[in-house]
Amino acid sequence: MFAENLAKRVEALHTPVLMGLDPRADLIPDDCFVEGRSDAVSIAKGFERFGIRLLEALADKVAAVKPQIAFYEALGLPGLQAYIAIIKRARELGIPTIADIKRGDIGSTAEAYACAHLKGSQGEDAPFEADAVTLNAWLGEDSLTPFFERCQKYEKGVYLLLHTSNPGSTDLQEWEGKGAKKVYQHLADLMDRWQDQFTPTEKWSSIGAVVGATWPSQLVELRDRLPRTPFLVPGYGSQGGKGEDVAFLFEKTEVPHLINASRSLTYAYRNEEGMTLEEGALKACEAMRKDILESAQG
Amino acid sequence: MFAENLAKRVEALHTPVLMGLDPRADLIPDDCFVEGRSDAVSIAKGFERFGIRLLEALADKVAAVKPQIAFYEALGLPGLQAYIAIIKRARELGIPTIADIKRGDIGSTAEAYACAHLKGSQGEDAPFEADAVTLNAWLGEDSLTPFFERCQKYEKGVYLLLHTSNPGSTDLQEWEGKGAKKVYQHLADLMDRWQDQFTPTEKWSSIGAVVGATWPSQLVELRDRLPRTPFLVPGYGSQGGKGEDVAFLFEKTEVPHLINASRSLTYAYRNEEGMTLEEGALKACEAMRKDILESAQG
Repeated sequence: MFAENLAKRVEALHTPVLMGLDPRADLIPDDCFVEGRSDAVSIAKGFERFGIRLLEALADKVAAVKPQIAFYEALGLPGLQAYIAIIKRARELGIPTIADIKRGDIGSTAEAYACAHLKGSQGEDAPFEADAVTLNAWLGEDSLTPFFERCQKYEKGVYLLLHTSNPGSTDLQEWEGKGAKKVYQHLADLMDRWQDQFTPTEKWSSIGAVVGATWPSQLVELRDRLPRTPFLVPGYGSQGGKGEDVAFLFEKTEVPHLINASRSLTYAYRNEEGMTLEEGALKACEAMRKDILESAQG
Repeated sequence: MFAENLAKRVEALHTPVLMGLDPRADLIPDDCFVEGRSDAVSIAKGFERFGIRLLEALADKVAAVKPQIAFYEALGLPGLQAYIAIIKRARELGIPTIADIKRGDIGSTAEAYACAHLKGSQGEDAPFEADAVTLNAWLGEDSLTPFFERCQKYEKGVYLLLHTSNPGSTDLQEWEGKGAKKVYQHLADLMDRWQDQFTPTEKWSSIGAVVGATWPSQLVELRDRLPRTPFLVPGYGSQGGKGEDVAFLFEKTEVPHLINASRSLTYAYRNEEGMTLEEGALKACEAMRKDILESAQG
């Protein structure tokens, strides 16, 4: 099962670091763009090189990798070709891949997205196959079922957007219902029910949740409310989340929570003159691991 | 502006019919698959032929077209290549294109999706450029801003998922807050504010809403609550919505509401032996137009 495999890897590598790949042409080192960056095709090749260099350098340093499909989609077909090459390379290297796609649609359309990103309806390889995906639950249970079914059947994972890291998360997610309960808390209750139904035998459910490091008190509360739920925590680093905000997640538990960092890892090479892409990412990755795990012990 | 242009077309053609393109290899006529349907490439070519034949036959019979990107995405790059060919042909034919993408992400990622599907950040053509897109608002205002900004600047449109047609829409959208107010009603209030802010000069806002025909009482209520909002109404036909459920939208108003039908139009050829794809769609399209507009007059 996805969550179990992830837990083994997190324990073996002793790190909760999830490397986000959010490629931006103006931040990637020049030596990734061997064919220049004049058009979508050459930029996409640079994105591919950037991703693959990072994967190869950090293969045994990161718990998992999270490519953000939007940045590749913005380049059209050449961008998505680079995206496919990157997830393929990650899977060859044995790095769990969490596709940050945030899809959500109804019935047969949800099934089509699951076929695109997890596994075909008869178990065929998916064209954009990843080990797990992020999903938007706004459309409710029938929009999620095709993905949930692939958790038990094909050892896949999903992460529902429970409380995102951005300011706008207060608009709907924090909206208050009866008895001072908020919408995200109601979604947490639904998640608990879906975990019972779709991943009943799992010690840690492969139905995980995205909860931003920028909301530390909600993170504490949700950890207690959903004890078998692996969290994917964005917002560390560039968005302001600190090691001490997330360290408690690694005390007294073996749930394979992941702390994501994208820009603060992959663009760290920019902080020091003469540093390579790989050196910057390795250094930032180790600093992040220590920041989180030493806060947890302290 | 998008909504204004759409209103002119709806009035000129005297139809609210939005043709959804949800291609499925098992339902499309054999004569679309000139190269067979053995792999993703040949199936994608069949999807392209299916879409383009329908567009060419119904160019002056439908108010707009709504390709569902998930079905193309499920075929990988060849599928998305067909998707691009279809929206390009629709735009050549002057048919407004509403890309059913239901994206939703934060900050720079939302900007990347807007660059992918509406317009580049400097006004460049987008690789998957459509006239409007459907969006998921679960992540709040900052996830929508890049799209809203393109409404005034580039005459684009958006449709927020306000109350979807599926059973799972009750899970979060119908959840009840303080004073018996529901989450979708709270989102409707937010929409009103966003329309003031981002499309203040528009008689009908280019920030529209998706509301399912399967929820007729909510549709009445939302029409009154959001009087300048064009609705995109799915759920007519195969999902059970009837002409009489939506007819009231066309009484005493010129707001360019759209009623979507996908399967009931594009697979209508299957209902009669010997009917071509085009004949089936034309017949079903005219029957749908009458069903809605005659209910409105009656």
